[in-house]
Amino acid sequence: MAQGLKVLNAVLPQDVKLETKEYDLGAQRWHRTGDTLPDAELEALRNHDAILLGAIGDPSVPSGVLERGLLLKLRFAFDHFINLRPSKLFPNTATPLAGRPDIDFVVVREGTEGPYTGNGGSLRTGTPAEVATEVSVNTAYGVERVVRDAFERAAARPRKKLTLVHKNNVLVYAGHLWKNTFDRVAAEYPQVSTDYLHVDAATIFFVTQPERFDVIVTDNLFGDILTDLAAAVTGGIGLAASGNINPTGAFPSMFEPVHGSAPDIAGQGKADPTATILSVALLLRHLGYDTEAARIEDAVSADLAERDGVTRTTDEIGDALAVRVAS
Amino acid sequence: MAQGLKVLNAVLPQDVKLETKEYDLGAQRWHRTGDTLPDAELEALRNHDAILLGAIGDPSVPSGVLERGLLLKLRFAFDHFINLRPSKLFPNTATPLAGRPDIDFVVVREGTEGPYTGNGGSLRTGTPAEVATEVSVNTAYGVERVVRDAFERAAARPRKKLTLVHKNNVLVYAGHLWKNTFDRVAAEYPQVSTDYLHVDAATIFFVTQPERFDVIVTDNLFGDILTDLAAAVTGGIGLAASGNINPTGAFPSMFEPVHGSAPDIAGQGKADPTATILSVALLLRHLGYDTEAARIEDAVSADLAERDGVTRTTDEIGDALAVRVAS
Ligand SMILES: CC(C)[C@H](C(=O)O)[C@@H](O)C(=O)O
Ligand SMILES: CC(C)[C@H](C(=O)O)[C@@H](O)C(=O)O
Repeated sequence: MAQGLKVLNAVLPQDVKLETKEYDLGAQRWHRTGDTLPDAELEALRNHDAILLGAIGDPSVPSGVLERGLLLKLRFAFDHFINLRPSKLFPNTATPLAGRPDIDFVVVREGTEGPYTGNGGSLRTGTPAEVATEVSVNTAYGVERVVRDAFERAAARPRKKLTLVHKNNVLVYAGHLWKNTFDRVAAEYPQVSTDYLHVDAATIFFVTQPERFDVIVTDNLFGDILTDLAAAVTGGIGLAASGNINPTGAFPSMFEPVHGSAPDIAGQGKADPTATILSVALLLRHLGYDTEAARIEDAVSADLAERDGVTRTTDEIGDALAVRVAS
Repeated sequence: MAQGLKVLNAVLPQDVKLETKEYDLGAQRWHRTGDTLPDAELEALRNHDAILLGAIGDPSVPSGVLERGLLLKLRFAFDHFINLRPSKLFPNTATPLAGRPDIDFVVVREGTEGPYTGNGGSLRTGTPAEVATEVSVNTAYGVERVVRDAFERAAARPRKKLTLVHKNNVLVYAGHLWKNTFDRVAAEYPQVSTDYLHVDAATIFFVTQPERFDVIVTDNLFGDILTDLAAAVTGGIGLAASGNINPTGAFPSMFEPVHGSAPDIAGQGKADPTATILSVALLLRHLGYDTEAARIEDAVSADLAERDGVTRTTDEIGDALAVRVAS
């Protein structure tokens, strides 16, 4: 986070006055107080232009507490229906794929519906007769807005290609809603070429032919899975940035690395801050600072292209990028 | 299918009399009659020792019709709660992964629950107020039996390692049931080492460190996604076999390639029959013909190790393997 703010400060024009406020949320706070995100802080966050979220999560906190109580609470409270996750194979990064395919696509993951709504429950919990359910909720309202956003993004890119990923041969109700909405909106974008893939088949193409993808639109859970895989094939989640976006501007959008918090190496100066720094670029682009966003992305590219294999500390990477974006 | 039967006939000892009966199911049948799997045929199938299922699916049939009406109908009617999918990197096969890791794991996918039950529905279908749901159903009964099976399989393998894959930080109800069941059963298998991965993280390890896996147990949908990815990293779904198994013997188990039917190349002699032939090996092992199953798997290994890059027809591959298993 410190490196992200360092680069943000370095890239902004002199006349832009940046005001930042830090909120102490996450595992340590929960251990100290039992709170994850009290209403007062949620309300306070609402008044910011944007949120930069540090990676959260810690094995010492029961699974689900911080995820549902903090991260998902923010995504749902601020109606972040676009979860934007670009995937690009930067120069010199070690992809596990042979032959270094040319990867440059973006996943538009729905962020407020699907199996993430918390619907479901458990009956006779802990007994041999337990039944536990999870309900994926999909609305025409929710699907149409993310599909439209994805078409807009595809139309603005050189290749103008949009792929819908779902599993409509099994999840027939949600699948029909997604596919019908997609096909209907597609008629308004004749310049965008489209196709459809089942999520299982999509994972195959992610490793055998990732260059086939330009923009992908998909549901919350499939997007979660595919973007980790995408991060892996583009050289690891140390580089994967994401935006939780409400394009209407009604709420602040939130930017975060795709990766978790790695508490085992906290404070050792080993963590790669690049994903956070690239998240700052997404934040800037969202707020209209396109030139500054591009400067950060170009700096990361150039920095990786020129790196000599020497391992650098968290600080050194942040410093190097801050110098590049400032000059 | 013809090659699968050819190899099956070739590998069986002289004194084993094989009776086969062919059922005409799938896309062509549906076009002709509108039927997918009438009750009379389902009843007739019940009396066999095992079922070898040809790859189904055809873009001319609406999505979901054959999947729900035929494939899933069989899996559910015959209570195939173990969907067994071995992944092995055979010699000379082209993995998309750099460095050719040593891959040899098996996914034990739950086959009768999760988001595959057909629970869910759509309200105000086709209107801007539509709500479509999909319900993942998980029972202690269903989870425990597949988890136990996976521990048994892990205990029988040299590395004795079992990984649970789920998404219990978001799907908390189902996730707790899976995790608690897993931990409880683990106490009975002190010789098996265990770990847990979220499904998104699992996809990362599938491409960066697939050699870390031995046996994986997971739910129906995660298993579907992971096994296509596994097939991709081990050289493609042309080699991926699977078994839909009811280990109690109450119903016939069913064996099928993981891949679809490729109707675009039907009859051209281009399809690779290896996944079907390896499914025959799984069928034989299930029926107690371990030696014969191993002969088929060894034949595939040897055949791939010695192949010279010349493209062979479907028939030629079947013939080559039939000769190998017979000698
Ligand atoms: C931490 C978890 C709740 C989260 C998700 O599943 O969305 C993460 O995996 C992500 O991709 O942002
Ligand atoms: C065809 C489809 C219904 C099926 C599934 O989702 O189980 C297939 O993808 C598989 O993996 O066997």
